[in-house]
Amino acid sequence: MQPSPAVPTTVAAVTLHPLSAARVTGGFWAGRMAANRAAIPLGRERLEAAGNLGNLRIAAGEASGDAQGGSFRDSDVYKWLEAVAWDGSQPDQLAELTRTITAAQRDDGYLNSAIQVRGEEPYTHLWNSHELYCAGHLFQAAVAAARSTGDTALLEVATRFADHLAHTFGPYGRSELEGHPVIESALVELYRETGVRPYLDLAKHFVDARGHGKATKPGFDPSHYGDPAHYSDRVPVREAGPLEGHAVRAVYFATGATDVAIETGDAELLDAVRRQYENMRRHKQHVTGAVGSRWDGEAFGDDYELPPDRAYAETCAAIGVLQWAWRLLLATGESSYADQIELLLYNAILPAVSLEDADYFYVNTLHRRTGARGDVQRAPAYGRRPWFNCACCPPNVMRTLASLPAYLATGTADGLQIHQYAGSTLRAGSFAVDIDTDYPWDGRVAVTVTEAPAAEVELALRIPEWATDATVDDKPVAAGDYARVRRVFRPGDQVLLHLPMEPRLLVSNDRVDSTSGCVTVARGPLVYALEQPDQQPGVPLEDLRLDTAAAITTARSELLGGVTTLHAKGAAVPESPEPYRSHSTSPRSPGNVDLTLIPYYTWANRGLYPMRVWIPTS
Amino acid sequence: MQPSPAVPTTVAAVTLHPLSAARVTGGFWAGRMAANRAAIPLGRERLEAAGNLGNLRIAAGEASGDAQGGSFRDSDVYKWLEAVAWDGSQPDQLAELTRTITAAQRDDGYLNSAIQVRGEEPYTHLWNSHELYCAGHLFQAAVAAARSTGDTALLEVATRFADHLAHTFGPYGRSELEGHPVIESALVELYRETGVRPYLDLAKHFVDARGHGKATKPGFDPSHYGDPAHYSDRVPVREAGPLEGHAVRAVYFATGATDVAIETGDAELLDAVRRQYENMRRHKQHVTGAVGSRWDGEAFGDDYELPPDRAYAETCAAIGVLQWAWRLLLATGESSYADQIELLLYNAILPAVSLEDADYFYVNTLHRRTGARGDVQRAPAYGRRPWFNCACCPPNVMRTLASLPAYLATGTADGLQIHQYAGSTLRAGSFAVDIDTDYPWDGRVAVTVTEAPAAEVELALRIPEWATDATVDDKPVAAGDYARVRRVFRPGDQVLLHLPMEPRLLVSNDRVDSTSGCVTVARGPLVYALEQPDQQPGVPLEDLRLDTAAAITTARSELLGGVTTLHAKGAAVPESPEPYRSHSTSPRSPGNVDLTLIPYYTWANRGLYPMRVWIPTS
Repeated sequence: MQPSPAVPTTVAAVTLHPLSAARVTGGFWAGRMAANRAAIPLGRERLEAAGNLGNLRIAAGEASGDAQGGSFRDSDVYKWLEAVAWDGSQPDQLAELTRTITAAQRDDGYLNSAIQVRGEEPYTHLWNSHELYCAGHLFQAAVAAARSTGDTALLEVATRFADHLAHTFGPYGRSELEGHPVIESALVELYRETGVRPYLDLAKHFVDARGHGKATKPGFDPSHYGDPAHYSDRVPVREAGPLEGHAVRAVYFATGATDVAIETGDAELLDAVRRQYENMRRHKQHVTGAVGSRWDGEAFGDDYELPPDRAYAETCAAIGVLQWAWRLLLATGESSYADQIELLLYNAILPAVSLEDADYFYVNTLHRRTGARGDVQRAPAYGRRPWFNCACCPPNVMRTLASLPAYLATGTADGLQIHQYAGSTLRAGSFAVDIDTDYPWDGRVAVTVTEAPAAEVELALRIPEWATDATVDDKPVAAGDYARVRRVFRPGDQVLLHLPMEPRLLVSNDRVDSTSGCVTVARGPLVYALEQPDQQPGVPLEDLRLDTAAAITTARSELLGGVTTLHAKGAAVPESPEPYRSHSTSPRSPGNVDLTLIPYYTWANRGLYPMRVWIPTS
Repeated sequence: MQPSPAVPTTVAAVTLHPLSAARVTGGFWAGRMAANRAAIPLGRERLEAAGNLGNLRIAAGEASGDAQGGSFRDSDVYKWLEAVAWDGSQPDQLAELTRTITAAQRDDGYLNSAIQVRGEEPYTHLWNSHELYCAGHLFQAAVAAARSTGDTALLEVATRFADHLAHTFGPYGRSELEGHPVIESALVELYRETGVRPYLDLAKHFVDARGHGKATKPGFDPSHYGDPAHYSDRVPVREAGPLEGHAVRAVYFATGATDVAIETGDAELLDAVRRQYENMRRHKQHVTGAVGSRWDGEAFGDDYELPPDRAYAETCAAIGVLQWAWRLLLATGESSYADQIELLLYNAILPAVSLEDADYFYVNTLHRRTGARGDVQRAPAYGRRPWFNCACCPPNVMRTLASLPAYLATGTADGLQIHQYAGSTLRAGSFAVDIDTDYPWDGRVAVTVTEAPAAEVELALRIPEWATDATVDDKPVAAGDYARVRRVFRPGDQVLLHLPMEPRLLVSNDRVDSTSGCVTVARGPLVYALEQPDQQPGVPLEDLRLDTAAAITTARSELLGGVTTLHAKGAAVPESPEPYRSHSTSPRSPGNVDLTLIPYYTWANRGLYPMRVWIPTS
């Protein structure tokens, strides 16, 4: 997560800049960020228990023993450290770990604790070793530390490693590629922070060299490890069609390609990744914004292959899409990318963490059946977990929520663009505002100017695509764009946005068979779900049908930390005995029931119960 | 495949016996068996190319070199050899391979070529070594050879190995269990053939000892390898609820438990497996009879988790269900099990092999999308293949089709029960009949008595559950049971069965979300499918909707080796641009189209095109 890609080159009509100061001050996200802050020390405990920190200490000569787990494990530490850096509440942790990491680094700049402790030769199985993946997360943590605290000790480790990479790989060096992208965007971020051009050049090399099987497991393998698409390595990015293969790899790589396009002013490459984003949005994105449809290979499916029950909606993939959308927002200024960020934050990333106690979903299913059985460790049927054997997701959530303020708004020379509505203070140069809102429960957003230049500036407020009756200062504004208020502002001036919060019924594209005949209920930015404990006792969730003709009402509730619940009318259809029956026979007669819906992100916080986002209609 | 379990003990009201003589003489299945006979020499070539035969020759001292592939590979040879034995056309192949296998066997009876060639210690990683799995397939091939040809040379190898197992495992021996069941039913078959009681006792031990984690990979593994359910090892079979985990393992194990129940007269165990079968049928079986819903772990899903597009309808799993249903039919005489065998043969096993040239599906998908991309080797998006790295399915199809006559009918002391309709001659003792039919294209089945005892005997004809207007000698008979004609028959007597062949529209249970709003078209025992080449040019398969109110007509066609095609009315709905839209907006306006359906088993024989079994309705 690099919430502040600096100085994008103008490859598009609009380029937005991250803010110099953004802070969440209250409301919904303040609560979630506080929970995330409380999770950070737990993350450290879990990294200790899993041996990740031990690996680095052994490599640093501070401890002895055998390395634990795969060579990807350093990345968990770096992601967690990035969360520490953005959060800023525990500078001593950053300093302590930086000392260990510095000591673990080899003289030539190489760093991977498991490879080093085991005495393995670096870069011999890059398709699966995650060595450059770990490097990328190190770079991102280092950039976060430098930007957030000014401490450049970790940045020195990062640049030594980056220099080593720049001497080792590239057109005049080794031609193999890392199996798991992230190094591409991380190198661009390092370039943005340091100005060292070879880092950008190496990123560009990694982006352009991919697509020719050089990241793929060599030899024959009948599984997804033998499939170049698994590594986004089947087709060069400029020619690529739909995203395919391992979802996290694909969106991380697209993010890196977008960064390269921005920093090199490569309009063709930017067009290619925008096309790919739009294709993904139209054909491969769950209603929550999550991506990934196949457990086997943690992969994208074919177009419209979007099963709610077997959604492989990996938390890390949603975070990757968020990062990608952010870059496209900066490059284009189009509100649809900010819409996507909102969708992802509330419905694809926030559901991954429990309301309390920092437990995490690796896979964010949209449907848990009655009697669901957990098979593999990351099965959502087990509920959220403190940690995983492959623990990519928990620290990824931590760093994302710790950096949340960076996604709220951007600045231009003469204006402030507000993309996400949260109780916050935002500053772009000498233009500063406070935002007061109870969003997403309420659609009122009050923007109060606290400082303004003497000249005319523009305040841009994102009007989500779904907000078809929004007003700014009581005047109707168009959905799916920014409402722009341009004038000379004075401290104390207030702009009042009203977003309509009527519940909405959504259906899928007709080609999504797996949700045919079902609706999803949304309100504001939130996707809702039916969970068993809120329904009439004795009626299994599978029996419930929603009456789309009846009104859906809302209520504030103390449930689940305080949410707005939705209340619908429906029917209960008892289970039929036949697996298949003649089309001309009727299903069983339904009885009337009331349905209660909760925000999807809150499910599985009261124990393990059946849940569904897509609800059959009556 | 053991089509002839001998002498079932009476644990149920009815026990049926395999026939002493059954032969396919013409019609549909004669063609498919001829194609299978032509596939057998190709199977040998592919076993040579893959190194399976080489492994055995190296172990036998007939060749030198390194072993190829995993220690499961001998099983492919044994399954192929079983096909050779049942088919009976190439006795020299059987003799030659038996010599090699005999030479490869260790003096103590142990046999696994890869383990031996690599010098590994036997039974050290039974959860994954497939050593007893290979033993089981050896036993089945040996029993087939003895029953089919009278040649007991391979049976001697089998009994030496079985004696070794009986001395090694069991209540007073090693307590670990094989990860992949099949040894259980194979030991019972060997007991039936030899009468050696310890083989049955060992099978009973393997059945009862399972369910306590002794077949599961030791230690921790976050994948399905760490899940006892993967090995049907989570709950003892007598207490088990729904089938779970790896589908092939689960149905093979249930088959073995059924064999043990039959041979030990264990009514409680028989009840348990019948309950499990019924549960599977109601909740976990695709409309084709295939089972398996998850690619990850090749596993059963939760109840009603039956995705057409990602169906993991493994060919071997369907064959396992067939074997299981056959045993339950013998034990109970209930026609529903014979209905299942028919469903499986036509729609879950036959689709796995091409009409010509012996190419095979590992996974029998029910939906191939436009633009589907193959990822892993066994992806059906690639079409059928000559062989696989893990080639369990092709020789499994070969042995099943080679033994097809055994499934046609059974005998009792005073009668003949005809379960499957094929051009054939059938004999139970001194009661013999010829069957003439063009089934499944036509519903007329003529049974002509060719020999009969002087006493009254009973001819039982299965009336499928779907055959609601069937007649026997022009008199209506009840569907879902046997029509029984009891009298003194004389040679030349004919009994005429008419099965109704009107196309039928089927819908899924309301809880199967993934096929909601869709129908499957069936005619007689055949499930039909839409394939792109038969539809109106320029209309993508995804656009097509079927009009359930319009009549479906039939036509005989020269297509695909000669089939009956179905013709329906429908609509084409153009693709919408929005991934999700408001429930209150309409989909695009449809245009009228004609739809042509082909039998599902014939799809992917004209190239790779979109196909679907479940068709959205208009």
